[in-house]
Amino acid sequence: MSAPATRKQGKFELEASDGAARAGLLHLAHGSVHTPAFMPVGTQGTVKAVSPEELEALGAEIVLANAYHLYLRPGHELVRRQGGLHKFMNWPRPILTDSGGYQVFSLAKINEVTDEGVWFQSHIDGSRHFITPELVMDIEYALGADVIMALDECPPGRADRETAARAVERTQGWLERCARRLDQLSTGEGSQLLLPVVQGGTFLDLRLESLRRARDLCDWGGFGIGGLSVGEPKQLMYEILEGMSPELPKHGVRYLMGVGYPADLLEAVRLGYDLFDCVAPTRNGRNGTAFTSAGPVNVKLAAWRDDVSPIEAGCGCWTCRSYSRAYIRHLFVAEELLGLRALSIHNLYFLTELMRQARAAICEGRLSGWVDGWTERYVS
Amino acid sequence: MSAPATRKQGKFELEASDGAARAGLLHLAHGSVHTPAFMPVGTQGTVKAVSPEELEALGAEIVLANAYHLYLRPGHELVRRQGGLHKFMNWPRPILTDSGGYQVFSLAKINEVTDEGVWFQSHIDGSRHFITPELVMDIEYALGADVIMALDECPPGRADRETAARAVERTQGWLERCARRLDQLSTGEGSQLLLPVVQGGTFLDLRLESLRRARDLCDWGGFGIGGLSVGEPKQLMYEILEGMSPELPKHGVRYLMGVGYPADLLEAVRLGYDLFDCVAPTRNGRNGTAFTSAGPVNVKLAAWRDDVSPIEAGCGCWTCRSYSRAYIRHLFVAEELLGLRALSIHNLYFLTELMRQARAAICEGRLSGWVDGWTERYVS
Repeated sequence: MSAPATRKQGKFELEASDGAARAGLLHLAHGSVHTPAFMPVGTQGTVKAVSPEELEALGAEIVLANAYHLYLRPGHELVRRQGGLHKFMNWPRPILTDSGGYQVFSLAKINEVTDEGVWFQSHIDGSRHFITPELVMDIEYALGADVIMALDECPPGRADRETAARAVERTQGWLERCARRLDQLSTGEGSQLLLPVVQGGTFLDLRLESLRRARDLCDWGGFGIGGLSVGEPKQLMYEILEGMSPELPKHGVRYLMGVGYPADLLEAVRLGYDLFDCVAPTRNGRNGTAFTSAGPVNVKLAAWRDDVSPIEAGCGCWTCRSYSRAYIRHLFVAEELLGLRALSIHNLYFLTELMRQARAAICEGRLSGWVDGWTERYVS
Repeated sequence: MSAPATRKQGKFELEASDGAARAGLLHLAHGSVHTPAFMPVGTQGTVKAVSPEELEALGAEIVLANAYHLYLRPGHELVRRQGGLHKFMNWPRPILTDSGGYQVFSLAKINEVTDEGVWFQSHIDGSRHFITPELVMDIEYALGADVIMALDECPPGRADRETAARAVERTQGWLERCARRLDQLSTGEGSQLLLPVVQGGTFLDLRLESLRRARDLCDWGGFGIGGLSVGEPKQLMYEILEGMSPELPKHGVRYLMGVGYPADLLEAVRLGYDLFDCVAPTRNGRNGTAFTSAGPVNVKLAAWRDDVSPIEAGCGCWTCRSYSRAYIRHLFVAEELLGLRALSIHNLYFLTELMRQARAAICEGRLSGWVDGWTERYVS
């Protein structure tokens, strides 16, 4: 059985473009997502320290969850018996699950990688597991996310050409098996949008080969770009993104995986990418770093001790509408849980709002100037 | 300058009584509180893991904050410069601050107790401090809570008669100085309701003496009962509460400090007490214990692994309306912050709802039977 030539689950509607940049609407089973969009990361079926109601209030339209983590704990079959991930975590809007490939290659202890799959040991309890493209589809199908990613091999950021080429080859083989398995599971009528992951390291020709071979297989609803922002020089990442952008289909969503920090997001938007995710806003928030338009700030700064102003003047987030810098600082100094929540919400709002502003600038044809002005003020 | 004979700040309106039990309305500067009421504890100016919006949604009408903690960090003068505690923590409804006496005697390292005051070392950094009734009023005045407690000496739960008698004596002297200082600060026109604390350990005659001497001083708006639930046998606590109840003024609020657990609350309500506070619901919540009408439950129980039902069927709290037992268990097993919040909210709602039901039972004259039935089902 071969994969269908076209996949109709989900639809990316291009609303406006500005240079390479795009404003779009991604229609999915559980709702639509305005792009460019930043996806908060809910690794274990919860965005750390933030509730679904708070995610909705800060403007998140889609969240990401990690197949690897949910497979290990509590188990995808348990989530399925609970009515699927949307119901389990009480988030009725779109969800994207990654394939777990990145986590297997970064978190777990790898025992053996073959074309068939990967033997690895759990980072939680050391238990041995064998992950295959078929198992990944079983997991993502059971979780029931709107967008699901194919299993890819993700080599380190400075992998040599040979390693990168082998990852492209293996990722391609795994993609075909993912598509086949998903069609079996959903009998070709599922609502989940399966996206291939483009690999190829920092070699543009390999990237284009990876993309071309996936395109030859089927008319996908979009593409994930994996294996970037994993340690390679930033300029190299931008060059790869710029080189790939014209080759990516216009009417498909473009998801740059694991990016990122504010300045990277804006550069990627300018280069034509639509979807992003990163643990940075929540992880930085829990570590006491607030995103502001002037750059990241450590909230324990002595200067904040007596400050009655919010983290950022004019910010519309719950945290800034509710609390002074002095209170936020107090929460962190006193190690209060509310501080973790307050900064996570502020940082997520910051990126969500950044994408909203980028979208408005694209629609009005003034993105590049706006990005330059923004980047000039931001000292990272 | 002597204290005024009557204190008119706040007003306790008795709505109904049922045996010794009472249903009332405590009118305060920032709103009214239906009693009996449980006060969530916001030690450091935040109820751990719970936001003000969530407190309001679960039905809390008043929260407690700790003068001792806020004095040490961030400092009461800082809170005053931030516009007072209500604004600092963004809780516009009533607040009660304790005096810090209990914390000084339980958390800090005591260096010396004299009639003048207490030398102690901070539990945070070992710094030396001298606390007096005057300083306590300065702190509580700067924080600006609706109800403020006088400084008391709180001996251990099994203190001998001599120790308990000395604490009564000292507490009385400190009360007079508190009243005098508050009148100086507020020039007799403040909106803060100052309550004396009755001490006397487990000796009813000392308790009654402590109460009588405070009453001789002024017509207070109510009384705090301190030094109970600190290690003495439970039956002894109930006997003291029962013995004191008829001697407490009918038209004043009765605040039993540091209680408690569900069964203790109900017994105290039956004996005629109105206000309660305890860290149990939030602390137990963070430790993975859920209050239910059948008794406390460890949420990591294997039986919850696949359970699609809420923590308690019919419970109206956010947690039970949003999540299954399996999800709550997953959050705790995976050490996710949302779990701490979810159980804290559920447990606070549980006690708040318990007080609402007790109030309804009092108004309908059926409290005692209702308490008996409730206590029978509850296995602590």
